[in-house]
Amino acid sequence: METNLQRIRTSIEDISRFNSTPGNGCTRFSYSKEDRMAKEYVIDQCLRLGLSVKVDAVGNIRARLEGTEPNQPAIFVGSHIDTVRHGGNFDGVVGVVGAIEAVRTLVENDIRLRCPVEIIIFAEEEGSNCGSTMVGSKAITGKYTVADLHSLKSPSGESCYELAKSFGLNPDQVENHVLESDEVKAMFELHIEQSVVLEREGLPIGIVEAIVGMNTIRIVAEGVPNHAGATPMGMRQDPMAASARLISEIEKIAKCRALPTTVATVGRIDCEPNVPNVIPGRVEFTVDIRDVEGEGIEMATSLIEKHMEDVSREYGLKMWSEPIGTSQSIRLSKAVSGAIEESARELEIPYMRMNSGAVHDAAMLAGMTEVGMIFVPSKNGRSHVPEEFTEYEHIKLGCDILLRAIVKISQM
Amino acid sequence: METNLQRIRTSIEDISRFNSTPGNGCTRFSYSKEDRMAKEYVIDQCLRLGLSVKVDAVGNIRARLEGTEPNQPAIFVGSHIDTVRHGGNFDGVVGVVGAIEAVRTLVENDIRLRCPVEIIIFAEEEGSNCGSTMVGSKAITGKYTVADLHSLKSPSGESCYELAKSFGLNPDQVENHVLESDEVKAMFELHIEQSVVLEREGLPIGIVEAIVGMNTIRIVAEGVPNHAGATPMGMRQDPMAASARLISEIEKIAKCRALPTTVATVGRIDCEPNVPNVIPGRVEFTVDIRDVEGEGIEMATSLIEKHMEDVSREYGLKMWSEPIGTSQSIRLSKAVSGAIEESARELEIPYMRMNSGAVHDAAMLAGMTEVGMIFVPSKNGRSHVPEEFTEYEHIKLGCDILLRAIVKISQM
Repeated sequence: METNLQRIRTSIEDISRFNSTPGNGCTRFSYSKEDRMAKEYVIDQCLRLGLSVKVDAVGNIRARLEGTEPNQPAIFVGSHIDTVRHGGNFDGVVGVVGAIEAVRTLVENDIRLRCPVEIIIFAEEEGSNCGSTMVGSKAITGKYTVADLHSLKSPSGESCYELAKSFGLNPDQVENHVLESDEVKAMFELHIEQSVVLEREGLPIGIVEAIVGMNTIRIVAEGVPNHAGATPMGMRQDPMAASARLISEIEKIAKCRALPTTVATVGRIDCEPNVPNVIPGRVEFTVDIRDVEGEGIEMATSLIEKHMEDVSREYGLKMWSEPIGTSQSIRLSKAVSGAIEESARELEIPYMRMNSGAVHDAAMLAGMTEVGMIFVPSKNGRSHVPEEFTEYEHIKLGCDILLRAIVKISQM
Repeated sequence: METNLQRIRTSIEDISRFNSTPGNGCTRFSYSKEDRMAKEYVIDQCLRLGLSVKVDAVGNIRARLEGTEPNQPAIFVGSHIDTVRHGGNFDGVVGVVGAIEAVRTLVENDIRLRCPVEIIIFAEEEGSNCGSTMVGSKAITGKYTVADLHSLKSPSGESCYELAKSFGLNPDQVENHVLESDEVKAMFELHIEQSVVLEREGLPIGIVEAIVGMNTIRIVAEGVPNHAGATPMGMRQDPMAASARLISEIEKIAKCRALPTTVATVGRIDCEPNVPNVIPGRVEFTVDIRDVEGEGIEMATSLIEKHMEDVSREYGLKMWSEPIGTSQSIRLSKAVSGAIEESARELEIPYMRMNSGAVHDAAMLAGMTEVGMIFVPSKNGRSHVPEEFTEYEHIKLGCDILLRAIVKISQM
């Protein structure tokens, strides 16, 4: 029993056509016309498999294949179908198509599991339209009230509540559509890796053990803006030079002084007045520190702050850090990872255990059930761009493992 | 014979009221309503001194006190009266008020010099309205054709030609209003220092020996944008980390490895996509390298480019530099600086010889006549900001030296 490469490819290509920016990557925001068309497409596929389909208060789609035993909790499997602006055709969609393909293969082989299997397609994972990521998976796990949906705003100022309402949903019911933990036996998500690790290792499959935690801070350096020509080097309090020194050190800290799993990224920098002939008065930048080990995050953060103080003293200027946000790392389920690993071994598919540097919908369910994730490689590590690509053969291997692991878990 | 502190102060304060952003610094763009009012004010002061006043094709004001001998070239003295947006009350204005005060002191003491003295108020020095600095001093020294005035555009798209025309000037005559070198004996400009050197040295007067030359380049680092969480440190090609390393080295090069007079500034940085959770794909920044010695500029530039290649190799990414602009350093007149220095000594005013890191209107005349500049301290080195300030006592000392040096030069 195996999944079908051609069907997987056709489904992904079909869904990629529901796109508001053809020729310039795929743009499919939640609650848009393209989102509706894509959802109608996947609902139609589910109905053809004889599944019962429900859409919840915020637009999560749940398509259920009943099990042979009554009152069993369901195995959930799915991902999301929305994209960032000018994104790719694989992020999220691979997990949705993989879930449908796994269930389709069960159905066409006349296999009924003891427990139900629910395909779940989460709404608004990317947050492109509502200003917060994973709206659907947060809503279904009870993290949102109706008031929260009112306060989530799109860039144009519409609330998530209004967007869902105009889409024909009933967001007032959000608190009544929360999953109970006894409804769920396990959750699987197949997803593209969005980085270069699998490709560099030459492996088609990653089994996710943990999702990293993070600490994001802003560092501000306040110096004295002065004329770039008229101020001798020895009389400067230049926040750009000080920031450059610190950013360079942040890289070394993450690379050599914290844990091997620690990463730190300066992704954003803003300089005032940002003109070539003025020594800047103020430079600020973000530091995104992640690790599966809380200790790595703590070590890196404290080394960065220590070094910031040294630099600030040396340059005779004020530097300080401000918190932006933190999240704890999440260990995924040993039982589910074990079932995935066993499946890979039985199918003789090479794999590695790895961590996820990004948070996914599945992580939202980690508090209430056993969660596992399967990664497939991203070409050149690229994601959220038009060139995002994953070999269909790799996706098919991911689907085969997913299917086999679902069967294993159903038997536990 | 000395200048009058109270008159100097009153004039500066009066002019500061011709301001389109009261309460938020001084904004007086050339060819604006405020510029017209300020110009009417200074023209009125000149007329009261019995000077003959002319306004040229682009709005430079020339107010002439005749000398005792016929056909002598004139000593020019002046600065500008326009400001940047939200600038201060002293940049330019100090030199205009100083010139008027020096001539006023001559007039009220019934002193006639052998040669004429012309107060000159250059138009559009800051370039805030025409997209190029020193438009007036460039025009009067023959650096512009009518076509050039058409091609200089304000941020709102109006040409310098149109702005001058609507102001009631006759820009078609720009090429007929060029100074001949036999009309000019010398040029003096009193100006605020716009940096911290005089203040730190505790001196009221700087005598400018040279105006720095410069080389401005743009450095671009192109890496691979990737997910900030999902990409291990060892698999990154991060242009931010590489740029930070290089910027930090640029500071060291200017400080320790080029000449003592060399300065280098990274004043502008732009990062793409500039979001906290993405390793940037591209970072570019400007490097403004200045020195009175051409050798210092060359050394710093070549060391920076050599180091750029090293960093680019180490980080496995593309880095390159693009030229933005260069200018040669300018030695000011030994005769004029000497007269200024002698005057300071005779008046027992402490001073230092120094270089100007900024280019001024006077520099435009350096090719055709003997040019000297006097600097007065800027409080905290700040300029082009509302807090720009110079002690009136220091300005008065500058005016006294200016007056005495004008007399000295007239006797040569």
